[in-house]
Amino acid sequence: MFFASDNWAGVHPDISTNLSRHAAGIATAYGDGDLDRAVYRRFSEIFERDVQVFFVATGTAANALSMSALNRIGGVAFCHSEAHMNVDEFGASGFYTGGARMSPVPGPLGRMNPKALDQAIDRYSRDLVPAGQPMAVTITQATEVGTVYTVDDVKAIAEISRRHGLPLHMDGARFANAIAATGVTPAEMTWKSGVDIISFGATKNGCWMADAVVILNPDVAKDLRLLRQRAGQTFSKARFISAQFEAYFTDGLWLRMAGHANAMAARLAETIEDAPAGRLAWLPQANEVFAILDHAKAEKLQAAGAKFYEWGVPQGFEGHLGDNEAIYRFVASFATTQQEIDQLGHLIG
Amino acid sequence: MFFASDNWAGVHPDISTNLSRHAAGIATAYGDGDLDRAVYRRFSEIFERDVQVFFVATGTAANALSMSALNRIGGVAFCHSEAHMNVDEFGASGFYTGGARMSPVPGPLGRMNPKALDQAIDRYSRDLVPAGQPMAVTITQATEVGTVYTVDDVKAIAEISRRHGLPLHMDGARFANAIAATGVTPAEMTWKSGVDIISFGATKNGCWMADAVVILNPDVAKDLRLLRQRAGQTFSKARFISAQFEAYFTDGLWLRMAGHANAMAARLAETIEDAPAGRLAWLPQANEVFAILDHAKAEKLQAAGAKFYEWGVPQGFEGHLGDNEAIYRFVASFATTQQEIDQLGHLIG
Amino acid sequence: MFFASDNWAGVHPDISTNLSRHAAGIATAYGDGDLDRAVYRRFSEIFERDVQVFFVATGTAANALSMSALNRIGGVAFCHSEAHMNVDEFGASGFYTGGARMSPVPGPLGRMNPKALDQAIDRYSRDLVPAGQPMAVTITQATEVGTVYTVDDVKAIAEISRRHGLPLHMDGARFANAIAATGVTPAEMTWKSGVDIISFGATKNGCWMADAVVILNPDVAKDLRLLRQRAGQTFSKARFISAQFEAYFTDGLWLRMAGHANAMAARLAETIEDAPAGRLAWLPQANEVFAILDHAKAEKLQAAGAKFYEWGVPQGFEGHLGDNEAIYRFVASFATTQQEIDQLGHLIG
Amino acid sequence: MFFASDNWAGVHPDISTNLSRHAAGIATAYGDGDLDRAVYRRFSEIFERDVQVFFVATGTAANALSMSALNRIGGVAFCHSEAHMNVDEFGASGFYTGGARMSPVPGPLGRMNPKALDQAIDRYSRDLVPAGQPMAVTITQATEVGTVYTVDDVKAIAEISRRHGLPLHMDGARFANAIAATGVTPAEMTWKSGVDIISFGATKNGCWMADAVVILNPDVAKDLRLLRQRAGQTFSKARFISAQFEAYFTDGLWLRMAGHANAMAARLAETIEDAPAGRLAWLPQANEVFAILDHAKAEKLQAAGAKFYEWGVPQGFEGHLGDNEAIYRFVASFATTQQEIDQLGHLIG
Repeated sequence: MFFASDNWAGVHPDISTNLSRHAAGIATAYGDGDLDRAVYRRFSEIFERDVQVFFVATGTAANALSMSALNRIGGVAFCHSEAHMNVDEFGASGFYTGGARMSPVPGPLGRMNPKALDQAIDRYSRDLVPAGQPMAVTITQATEVGTVYTVDDVKAIAEISRRHGLPLHMDGARFANAIAATGVTPAEMTWKSGVDIISFGATKNGCWMADAVVILNPDVAKDLRLLRQRAGQTFSKARFISAQFEAYFTDGLWLRMAGHANAMAARLAETIEDAPAGRLAWLPQANEVFAILDHAKAEKLQAAGAKFYEWGVPQGFEGHLGDNEAIYRFVASFATTQQEIDQLGHLIG
Repeated sequence: MFFASDNWAGVHPDISTNLSRHAAGIATAYGDGDLDRAVYRRFSEIFERDVQVFFVATGTAANALSMSALNRIGGVAFCHSEAHMNVDEFGASGFYTGGARMSPVPGPLGRMNPKALDQAIDRYSRDLVPAGQPMAVTITQATEVGTVYTVDDVKAIAEISRRHGLPLHMDGARFANAIAATGVTPAEMTWKSGVDIISFGATKNGCWMADAVVILNPDVAKDLRLLRQRAGQTFSKARFISAQFEAYFTDGLWLRMAGHANAMAARLAETIEDAPAGRLAWLPQANEVFAILDHAKAEKLQAAGAKFYEWGVPQGFEGHLGDNEAIYRFVASFATTQQEIDQLGHLIG
Repeated sequence: MFFASDNWAGVHPDISTNLSRHAAGIATAYGDGDLDRAVYRRFSEIFERDVQVFFVATGTAANALSMSALNRIGGVAFCHSEAHMNVDEFGASGFYTGGARMSPVPGPLGRMNPKALDQAIDRYSRDLVPAGQPMAVTITQATEVGTVYTVDDVKAIAEISRRHGLPLHMDGARFANAIAATGVTPAEMTWKSGVDIISFGATKNGCWMADAVVILNPDVAKDLRLLRQRAGQTFSKARFISAQFEAYFTDGLWLRMAGHANAMAARLAETIEDAPAGRLAWLPQANEVFAILDHAKAEKLQAAGAKFYEWGVPQGFEGHLGDNEAIYRFVASFATTQQEIDQLGHLIG
Repeated sequence: MFFASDNWAGVHPDISTNLSRHAAGIATAYGDGDLDRAVYRRFSEIFERDVQVFFVATGTAANALSMSALNRIGGVAFCHSEAHMNVDEFGASGFYTGGARMSPVPGPLGRMNPKALDQAIDRYSRDLVPAGQPMAVTITQATEVGTVYTVDDVKAIAEISRRHGLPLHMDGARFANAIAATGVTPAEMTWKSGVDIISFGATKNGCWMADAVVILNPDVAKDLRLLRQRAGQTFSKARFISAQFEAYFTDGLWLRMAGHANAMAARLAETIEDAPAGRLAWLPQANEVFAILDHAKAEKLQAAGAKFYEWGVPQGFEGHLGDNEAIYRFVASFATTQQEIDQLGHLIG
């Protein structure tokens, strides 16, 4: 019963096998080998556009390096107030940018409110230098609380960003889950809707270390190769990241894995709704389920071996929490089984 | 005939197999799983001391994060003037430290001259704040030009560092080659000789991405965990780096691979010495061979498919270079074959 | 009718005269001369404790260097959401600290709510590294909106800071005004109430460039001298800053100037209250008056030569703003005259 | 007998008087007042071109902010190996740039050798990213050791800089002394010879705090206003820096002061040459004299009240130092008197 995080899961066999397949052989280093180039082209096919791909160490590094590529002096980036970049990345973006700031924007259930975004940017638009220079807007897809921006949601954010002359970044640590959930193409979800640059995460979705910054609009971020070099993240044997992505994109593996995780989350949600002792905090849209449990019940589940964490109360939560209750997060992954869900359902009772 | 760099090589089958073995299964993330802990203990056994191990993205990141852990305000680190950190890492250490500087120290064939080090540090010891604060000494083992510090060499550097109150860092991107070449233990080569912290590289020696900072003396670098977090290099599925190291240290694989690379380099050196058209620039001590060739010969070899690069003339070079000659570097790896060497020897003629 | 800012004013004649008096003569540079040392001792007398004094370029530099002296990796400082440091210093603190963040805390009329502070810090206290490391609390005295923390207010903030192990910084750009307004001693207002370090501003209060960081508790900030050196703010002819402070502290000039500015603000407030067309947004406590005017009236005043700016609506504002109304800020200084106030009152009508 | 440094001197009476004259009155803050604008225009007249002027805190800040305006990712600036920026500014440039490096270039007596500069830049021109990106060349005029670049010297450096596409910065902490010494115009010495940006120092030459970055070529440094803002050096009462420069440039005061300092240095040099116990280390060209004395003699002078410091042996020194001898620096300023020189000459004997 592993629901602690999708990064507790291992590696899909197809990816593991492909890594082994490429183990021998000798190739040009630093991401300039044949396999690397093939994978970059594959990204361009996936996104239906010539994109630039930069492998980086982690999702946090992808976000922080994206911000450093969009950086301005006295820079201010606008993100949801509960965004991973704002509350869970130890100030990495501030470090990589030499002090750029995150301006938190409210919005219900992990999604930035477009009007609130507009107002937040407006505060910097009065030609008052000391306040700071707006530099970027960033949204998380799927969000931290398991919800998903629709294409129209993304377009609404992009429209405001564009009006203020700001590039739009997407933190896609769970991008595959959002694509699988909505059924739209990666192109529609991103550059066709106004997204300029994306942190493309595959680690949580069945790879073992595969994160990239993908530049969709070459006008917004020119120096990423150099910024990554200075950050010590130009991998010598980059082809083993390429090998993961090669398998990831073969026969739609990435969407099959994400689809499985989403489906498992949906079943888990049903199971919790059906259980007398549990109820959902809100409806899941991707691979994360947030349930309200009383503390005693949660402890009993954990004592029985279920892995999951308590979560804070997000903005826009409209439910009711009893005195002895809290919100708990359950994450499904490509490796989650029906059996684990049944077992948990049985225990919730 | 791949002699361009040891990071063009692939992955040793034992390491690849071990990665596959750990592909399935679910484990605690962020380096706190059972396998991770077992590998940390293995490092302590290898070094015969309780050490702290921090996986990082690359060798450059290992060096830069080491420097940031040793950082002082207005800090100055002392390195060989041809050290990778000084001339080949795009200022990563300066970036990670917020501006600490490398003070280059001369010395023949890649090895810092102890007396020159002493003088270089002395320039900062006169209580003159504006000059800067000495913060660390760093040496590369094996060096950039294929030579090796003996234990006595390391002790001489360490003695001067200690006298000035400075921690001693070792850039061990090719540490295994130095251990295999000298036959001393890792403990003798490091903390028993005064080394406090090491960038422990395994990527060039048959892993695919396995770099770590290893703190040997816990007094000198307390905040590495937090510095790494802020740098976005806390890997969620760290156990796949652990899996590489697990195999790396099993049955002495690491020293067998390094020993093979060194032996291949020695044979390559003999082959070059025996060839009428070639001569060694200096004697190799690890897995890199530097040969003097005339340009026409070098181009002929490259045209025939041999991969290798021209190199600059290092300090302390006592040989003679003709007008049409240059120094070329040939690197052997765990995957280098006798056949490649024979083929090259045949071509040099 | 100059009410735009107290930094539009010039220099008090006593300070100007003292600068001239010290113009000739030759002295040790970099803040180590006799006059410098005498002024440092004078600060210790003013604060009734051995303090350390560091002259810096501006109030923003004082705040940013204070933060860099209190900095932690992944650091988070807690300030009022409308604090100058948060919204008006172009990210200087983030730059000087390599990315430390400001966590905004709400509170009515410029003063941080102690309970909200406690909750804000608590969010970082759960041993969750990725969130960040709390590093400091900072309050502004007098506040951005002309209110003042009482000694009890300061103690309440300090008690929470201490409980969380955090040093307390005071942004004292208008410290003199707060002291003049409350009548308590500088010692009572600061270290006796738990303040560890203060940005001590005199520029707005009749000096021309006299800002200092004063360390009241030597345990909290050890490296300020070096941080300032690296920031290029170690003034060679520091004695001309000392000369300003020498006069500033002679015969209570600093409190006489601040007292005058406060008194002028009080009269201005009365004048506005008495005027049919004006009303106060809230009661002024120091040298800044915030009035509600309709736009037409404000423009008429400005057309008549009155200098003042529109201001945003602060947290905790309980008044009512009509459709055509806004809040305007009027700042009095040591140089403000009764005549200017009468003239403005006449115009408001 | 004050020869320790020109920054031990006080303020010229004309400058002091002008400060007093501007003490009263109220003006727009942050460098946008009438006096500020007049002084900016005066700079343009002095340089015979529309220049941009940015007041900063110190000469070190001027250099570091100049470097940050010319900064590139992985940036490398080329300076003389004994340049103030390289050895005497506590790494300020590295801090302001987020890690850009100084690449030291040799040359006799403080002046960069053009051929050595060319070679130093060439090392970075081979399309090898990891080495770093050349970003600027910087020269010091007058140099650290009292020598002066001729216009032809500057042009030779500028020609190489231009060929490599690099902007040329001048550290003009003693620019007035160089102008007074050579008799060429500021325009000839700078932009007409290829200098793009200058740290214009007046503090050492009779002001008390008057340093500016002056951009001569607007193409090379666009963001200085914002970089300065983020560095906390946008002075609110900037007009008191303007007041110093107003007097500084009136009736050629600046060149009269520098000319006096140079003349005093020349006489001091004669006095030392004439003394049996002293000899010059090399011929002075501006306001600094370097003499060879034996230690006993130097101590005797210091015991008699003469202020001066021992200096290291610079590159290109062709004289001879006896066992008991060292090089000592004597600096003359606008305030140095013939009497002081006579007194020193008498003591040297």
